[in-house]
Amino acid sequence: MNTVELIEKKKNNEPLSTEEIKFLVKNFTRGKIPDYQMSAFLMAVLLKGMNALETATLTDEMLKSGKVVDLSAIKGLKIDKHSTGGVGDKSSLIIAPIVASAGIYVPMISGRGLGHTGGTLDKLESISRFRTNISLTEYKKVLRQCGAVLIGQTKEIAPADKLMYSLRDVTATINSVPLITASIMSKKLAEGIDGLVLDIKTGNGAFMKSTKDALELSKSLIKTAKSFNKKVIAFITDMNQPLGNYVGNWLEVYESVKILKGQIKNDAYKLSTELAGAMLFLGNKTKSIIEGRRLAEQQIKTGKAFNKFLEIVEHQGGNTYFLNNPDEYPKSKHVKKVRCAKRGFIEKMDTYNIGMASMELGAGRKTKSDIIDHKAGIIFHKKTGDYVKNEEVICELHSNSIIKIKTAEQIIMESIQCSETKPPTPKLIKKIIR
Amino acid sequence: MNTVELIEKKKNNEPLSTEEIKFLVKNFTRGKIPDYQMSAFLMAVLLKGMNALETATLTDEMLKSGKVVDLSAIKGLKIDKHSTGGVGDKSSLIIAPIVASAGIYVPMISGRGLGHTGGTLDKLESISRFRTNISLTEYKKVLRQCGAVLIGQTKEIAPADKLMYSLRDVTATINSVPLITASIMSKKLAEGIDGLVLDIKTGNGAFMKSTKDALELSKSLIKTAKSFNKKVIAFITDMNQPLGNYVGNWLEVYESVKILKGQIKNDAYKLSTELAGAMLFLGNKTKSIIEGRRLAEQQIKTGKAFNKFLEIVEHQGGNTYFLNNPDEYPKSKHVKKVRCAKRGFIEKMDTYNIGMASMELGAGRKTKSDIIDHKAGIIFHKKTGDYVKNEEVICELHSNSIIKIKTAEQIIMESIQCSETKPPTPKLIKKIIR
Repeated sequence: MNTVELIEKKKNNEPLSTEEIKFLVKNFTRGKIPDYQMSAFLMAVLLKGMNALETATLTDEMLKSGKVVDLSAIKGLKIDKHSTGGVGDKSSLIIAPIVASAGIYVPMISGRGLGHTGGTLDKLESISRFRTNISLTEYKKVLRQCGAVLIGQTKEIAPADKLMYSLRDVTATINSVPLITASIMSKKLAEGIDGLVLDIKTGNGAFMKSTKDALELSKSLIKTAKSFNKKVIAFITDMNQPLGNYVGNWLEVYESVKILKGQIKNDAYKLSTELAGAMLFLGNKTKSIIEGRRLAEQQIKTGKAFNKFLEIVEHQGGNTYFLNNPDEYPKSKHVKKVRCAKRGFIEKMDTYNIGMASMELGAGRKTKSDIIDHKAGIIFHKKTGDYVKNEEVICELHSNSIIKIKTAEQIIMESIQCSETKPPTPKLIKKIIR
Repeated sequence: MNTVELIEKKKNNEPLSTEEIKFLVKNFTRGKIPDYQMSAFLMAVLLKGMNALETATLTDEMLKSGKVVDLSAIKGLKIDKHSTGGVGDKSSLIIAPIVASAGIYVPMISGRGLGHTGGTLDKLESISRFRTNISLTEYKKVLRQCGAVLIGQTKEIAPADKLMYSLRDVTATINSVPLITASIMSKKLAEGIDGLVLDIKTGNGAFMKSTKDALELSKSLIKTAKSFNKKVIAFITDMNQPLGNYVGNWLEVYESVKILKGQIKNDAYKLSTELAGAMLFLGNKTKSIIEGRRLAEQQIKTGKAFNKFLEIVEHQGGNTYFLNNPDEYPKSKHVKKVRCAKRGFIEKMDTYNIGMASMELGAGRKTKSDIIDHKAGIIFHKKTGDYVKNEEVICELHSNSIIKIKTAEQIIMESIQCSETKPPTPKLIKKIIR
């Protein structure tokens, strides 16, 4: 078998055999296939696609490139959630404690933010001393003891994915359904899960701009999950505006705390309880997603979810003081209120640019080495469909730098469109697929 | 400008601007764009194509990556020929002396054989002491003094092409019309030519298997040549059997000598005089290609072409003894006659495999570091359409190794198909385009 022939085959739109995919992933991970051959192959995959069997094989080989956590010693179903990412998406922080508090194990390996999107790990690290880089042994221990664990991708998990992802990032080969599928699923399968709820974001702040693309990715993920005998439900959800009202690391933890305490019931609350509901349903706790959602709401109402959140944070070394007293968390040096120039309804929010504005404020990374300012970000007082009076505040920009605020304000002003007529209410959950 | 964005653009089938192509070629040649980004870009080009303007720009940037020979001090038109390569294609050796002997300058930069195809340089080096690696200063001197020069690609000529070609070779990105066009034309334009005759091979021994692909490449080459204000004629010619009767380095020089002496008038003679005729026409020596062909035949008949060949070889340091006494050249240690198992017409010759058999015998390279056996190769007594009697010799295999002969014989037996009915005569010249 030789690499050039395999690139040739894919380029000519021929499916690769299991042995051929195995050869590519194994030798690439061992450094025997150079980056320049792999990137040509990845571009061929992006432009010619892969069928369901190829995608499952690719997933399997990437999974096998590292350790697969064995959670069989922990009795009970383990269900995770994966979101394709967006702006203000703090749902993992809300969902994990809800679901764990209802008796389902939630083993969660998350990522960091890059570009316009936030990352669960960065948000968690705004809680002082919270450790996301724990070993797989400790991962199992925390999961067993408190029912949920939130960590970052370790070197042992799917190293092939890490190598391929770095290469894809610099060769314009990110947006390929089979490559995204294998990347997501190899990591999720390595966690040792029984079931998975997928939150596929679509809209101007998501990687999948159109519902059609989101649907295609959902189907591919579902097929692949099923081929590994995992329970799966996919939600296609709206990312044409930030999720919730807070964007930024601590700001999103703050909002999550308020939601877990039952003090905020916005779209982030709705989506989180719905996704948690689906996880409870997959974990056989309820007979339907709707029942699951009601149980999730119940876990919030009774205080069990918030208590579970404190428990998780404590188990991972975090200081819970500011979770109990969220309004005491230090504020950014500068807060700038962005006001409406003329009254009207908010018609459109360019969510990608809102994410970029948040990054400018210090909440995200332009390059991998940038250091995050946990306090920085945006608080939205108004969202799509809301009426804004003359000079009313649309949002607040938080940053330690006046210059950054000026840059971000400019972006924000251009990202929000107003209209005189009320736009149709955006649909949060567009589709549920199984 | 950033490389990822440019790959993204090409991948999305958007044309690149002149500035963007310049950025890519310049930075790649300087080592500022890594191989893995270039190979992803090349794959995107292969699968999405380039328009005529992009192709011309790419050619121009590759050309400008090195020296462009200035031949303006040599008065008179300079016309070259380029063949896309095949098996037994010795036409450069025949054409250069014919055309130079009629007063047109022929500045010719040629390549080496790899895989199933032969290379003009390797053939010339079967003439002892013939130097193909001469400097550009000597190149001009030889051209001025004897009207033709035959050298290899120097480091100064289109270095971008050399780098890109090596990368394409190992990433399955060879067979792209715009990439082939830019590779050929950047080198040819660097020679300092006024006009170019193209021999685009098509068939089972060519890189372009179908006439449709050959036509597409021809059109792209013609468009690009014209955009540089060069005169151009393209021939689409048959490569469903070897050209001429000899395959192998010295064997092809031998056949060329016999053709230049007027002693062989086979298909290699026909094609060479036709292509030479087109060059003479482009060089304003005749009013048509047909008249040009007649003049070419005349140059052979009068002995002028053969004398010019001796002159070129002498100017490049070669020993002419065996050109004057070709039958005295040392023979291979082993010569095996391949006979027909049952009588019939030769219906089909798998020319790619015939090339591979010749390589096996020692006439070609499996890898770039292999050393060529100049005497090795195949002499065909019969070709497509010929009647073969029982036990009659079809061809002779020449090699210094019995083992190599056995391997090659096996390939040859499987490469030649016979039939009871006479197949239609293959058409040598399929199309002439301007």
